[in-house]
Parts: sequence; C-alpha cells; structure tokens
Amino acid sequence: MNDHTYSSQINRQAKLATTLQAAGLDGLVLNPGPSLVYLTGLHFHLSERPVAVIFVPDEIPVIVLPELELEKVKNLPYPIQAFPYGEDPALWDVAFRKAVQATKMDGKHIGVEPRQLRLLEFRLLLNAALDAEFVSADTSVARLRMFKDESEISAMRKAAGIAQNALQATLPQVKIGCSERELAAELTLQLLRAGCDSEVPFAPIVSGGPNAANPHATPSNRKLSAGDLLVIDWGASSEGYFSDITRTFAIGDPEPELKTISSIVLEANAKGRTETRPGIPAEQVDQAARKVIESAGYGKYFTHRPGATNPGAGE
Amino acid sequence: MNDHTYSSQINRQAKLATTLQAAGLDGLVLNPGPSLVYLTGLHFHLSERPVAVIFVPDEIPVIVLPELELEKVKNLPYPIQAFPYGEDPALWDVAFRKAVQATKMDGKHIGVEPRQLRLLEFRLLLNAALDAEFVSADTSVARLRMFKDESEISAMRKAAGIAQNALQATLPQVKIGCSERELAAELTLQLLRAGCDSEVPFAPIVSGGPNAANPHATPSNRKLSAGDLLVIDWGASSEGYFSDITRTFAIGDPEPELKTISSIVLEANAKGRTETRPGIPAEQVDQAARKVIESAGYGKYFTHRPGATNPGAGE
Repeated sequence: MNDHTYSSQINRQAKLATTLQAAGLDGLVLNPGPSLVYLTGLHFHLSERPVAVIFVPDEIPVIVLPELELEKVKNLPYPIQAFPYGEDPALWDVAFRKAVQATKMDGKHIGVEPRQLRLLEFRLLLNAALDAEFVSADTSVARLRMFKDESEISAMRKAAGIAQNALQATLPQVKIGCSERELAAELTLQLLRAGCDSEVPFAPIVSGGPNAANPHATPSNRKLSAGDLLVIDWGASSEGYFSDITRTFAIGDPEPELKTISSIVLEANAKGRTETRPGIPAEQVDQAARKVIESAGYGKYFTHRPGATNPGAGE
Repeated sequence: MNDHTYSSQINRQAKLATTLQAAGLDGLVLNPGPSLVYLTGLHFHLSERPVAVIFVPDEIPVIVLPELELEKVKNLPYPIQAFPYGEDPALWDVAFRKAVQATKMDGKHIGVEPRQLRLLEFRLLLNAALDAEFVSADTSVARLRMFKDESEISAMRKAAGIAQNALQATLPQVKIGCSERELAAELTLQLLRAGCDSEVPFAPIVSGGPNAANPHATPSNRKLSAGDLLVIDWGASSEGYFSDITRTFAIGDPEPELKTISSIVLEANAKGRTETRPGIPAEQVDQAARKVIESAGYGKYFTHRPGATNPGAGE
C-alpha cells in the first residue's frame, strides 16, 4: 500500500457519506474484500476470525479485528477506532457490541454487501444491533467505485497489458498433446513474470475440446488435440486492480460448424461494440449481441452474457 | 477433477448422512468452497451469481446454479437434481424455492457454514424456507473432513514438498536491497514451477524488518536491509490440498534482542511439539508454547497462536 493510495482513501470516505445519504442509508458495514481496500487501504484475508469496519457519517469509523492484526491499523492517515479481540471466539460478541455502541448504528438503516458479507460477521452484527435494519448497499458502493480516478485507470491499463504480455509469452507453448493444467500453470507463471501482483486475481481457465463448452471449467489433465477449440480466460492484477479477458483459439483446423459458430460470435461481438456508448444501459449491449446469436439459431446455448454486471444484482 | 476423487465423493456423501444425524441436523446447505469440493467434487468461484447445494439424507441432493454452469453437473457419478436459473436475478427466488421443496428441508434443522456462507445465498434460503432453523454445522463438517484418506494424505505431503522446493529455489534470490514484493512474486513463480496447482492457495506473505511484526502483512516495496528479520509465510496446493508454512530468516547479523527472541520462540516451539500427541486438545499445545514466551516476558506480543484451529469457532 503506497501513500498515494492512502490519500485517495480519505477522499473516498468523504464521498461515501454523501453517497450513503443519497441512498437513504445511515451507515455501511464492510468485511474484508475489494470495497474495504477501496475505502480504507486495509487488506485482510477471509479467515476464521471475523473482521468488520463500520462507517456511520459524523462518527469515527470503527474496526473490529483480532489483536494479531492490530499492526495493520497503526499510523493510518485517517481516524479509525479499533475494537480488537483475543484468540477466544467467546470475545467476539463483546468487541462487536462495543463497536456498534461507538458508532450509534443500532436502530438505523445500515448497508451491507450481500455478495461479500459472511454469515459469521452478519450474525455478530445482528446480535450487537438488534434494532438495526440491514439492507443491500451494492448499488451505492458500485456508484462510488465505478468512477475511476487517474491512478485507478492507470492500474487497470497496466493490468490489461500484463495479461496480454503473459498470454503472448504462453502461446508458443500451446501444442497438441499439452494438457489444460500445464498451460494454466504456465500462464500463471508468465503473469507473475510480466509483473502481476503476487496475488493473481483468479486462476486462469484453460479448456479445450468438449471442456470448452463449460464457461467456468477447471483446467483438467485432458490433452489438446487437432481440431479443438481452446478457451483461455485469464487476468492480471496491478495494485489490486484486475483485468479479465477471454479468448478462443483453434488448434489446427476445426470442423466447419465450429468455424460457423466462431463467425457468428465475432458478428455478435461487433454488434455489441457498436451499441456501446456513454449513457446506455449495459443490457442494451447484451441484447444487440444476443440477437445475432438467436437469429443464427444458437440462442439456447448462449447462457452467458457480455461482461457488464448489474450492480444491483444482490438486491 | 479425476475419477478417483469422484469415487471418494460418493463415500463422503454417505458418511455425511451419519454425521448429520449424530449432530441432530436434518440437512446441510453448502455454497462454493472446500467443503463443497470435498462432498461433490464441484468447483465454482464465489461470483455475483448464487450457488447452493442442499443435502438432506434420504432425498436426492439438489443444486441451485446459473444455467451457464450446467455443464459442470452433467455426467456426475452420483445423483443430483439441478435447479438452474437464467441471467435475470429475479429468477433466483424461484430456483431456491423449487430446490427447498424438492428436499423437503423447510421446517427442519439445517446446518450451514457461517465462515463460508454469504448473505447473498443465506437470504435466498431464508425466503425459500421460512420455517427452517439454520445452525452452524462447522463441528460436523470438520469431524467429517478431519479424517483423511490415503489419497488426501498423499496430496498434503505433495503440497508440503512443493512448498519446500519452491522456497529452496527462492532463497538464493534473497539479498539486501530486494523488495518484499519481488520476493513474493518470485516465490509464487517457484511454487508453480515446483508443481503447485495453478490456483495458489494464498498469496505468500514476505515481510522484513518492522513489517515482520505484522503477522498477516501485505508484501510492500520495502527493501531488505542488513539486520532485518524476514518472515515468509507461504504454501502450495496439490489436487486442492494445501500446505501452509511460516519461517523466519535473519538478513546478516540481527541485534542481540532479536537473537534472544528467536531462541525463546525456538524453545516455545520445542515445548509445543513435546506436548503434541493423539487425543490431547489443541489448546494444550498452545499453552505449553505460550508459557515459555510468557515466562520470558514477551507474552503480550504473542497475539497469534500455534496452528491448530478450533473447528467450533464459528458457533
């Protein structure tokens, strides 16, 4: 975590107050994950020990965390009050109650992230704030995070470049007889060599032949053979910002139907790009691309969607 | 996922029924994670789309999943009923309701994993099974998973060996002037080269000097300097089984107090090992080690604990 990032976090916490107010929320509780890093610069892994940060505008933010993590919240450039607990799980309840009291969040409308918050932390919050109402803050958090500053855009560009370079370095190794697992390991290695953060954003998907029909396949020991389509879905991370790219390759000469499908997808992709411009809803891009695939008679196989995620999907 | 692993999953599902019964539980709901892989062999990442598997003894297990993941549950060697949903989040509720009906889990005692289950899936379960009581199944699941079969022990040994080999390959690069980040990236690269699964179990922690006092530090741009202690906390994954090792090194000649502390930790480690034998509670090992550190006057800095986790910690 560099100083630059920390100064951003101070601005982001200030913006959070306005965003919460606009959404009718009195506060936000986060457990470890990307939104917590965004707002505090604090990295924790999801462990057997609960960690939560509570933001209530006009109150000092608080963090409940294990004593062994206390070093992480020393000398931060913004105020935060820590409620640490020792190694006995019986101490969790007390720490959460104190944190809830300090923020006066009980009885209020508090935002949470349903895709990130675990039952572990949620039950401790419920017990400590019996009269709080917990609602999804996904839309508010997305609204805050979707406007990227220059340093974020630069990190995203870097993440995309690292991923491209790693693929270029891997492609010469793609040969008939190679297994999906071998290629996935090689690609990960090349990601790190190309400058990816040591925490790779996700394990690359490498799937060939029939496995390529499974969009989120786990790389197997299946070996590439002539005529296979090969799907590679990979990304890099730069200062915590991810790239995520999927490409399909042909091993030798694929059957005619696969070539036809490939050109349909290419056309759908082009149509989707034509629709893409500021101000339109993401589903309009989806529909433009989808129509091409449906007209060609392959609609029922298009169970996936173009990349944009609906930020309100958890609500 | 190889066939061998799948045959284990059939036995494990049979054992689950007995384990649940012994704990007074009528069923178990899992979302993606290690326990789901253990019982079904199914890998999903935690995405914006909810996924849940419901086990109720004497009923066919069910899975709620996005249509685009359907390939994963085709041709499994055990029965499972799939309730897929399309890309519109409004369809989630219906799929969860159908799954709950099929398993007759409503009104029953259902186990969940609080450290793994997200609010996303939990709220859908609550809405679909208004009269079910959800309780932690951590102890039951741990009881099932803690007895390792030969293939598991072999994978764990392999994971430990890969981690050791990766460290050996990295150590020659540890030099004054190297940054923590560079070493973490090199170690990850060596893990993959040594045969680690392409999904590295966790990003290695490499922390030197003052950063080494933070047990879960994120590797920084700080460069190693003479007299530093260097903490490396890393692990490998083999067929999904993890190793997790922490070692402390001295860069050049550390100050006398650091040498004293090091010998206290060595003694505490030896005392802990002496206490370790079948049948004793893990906290007895902790206490033996802790006593050495406390007697030496460093007790208040020992905020961590020897490795064993209390499986009931989420309850």
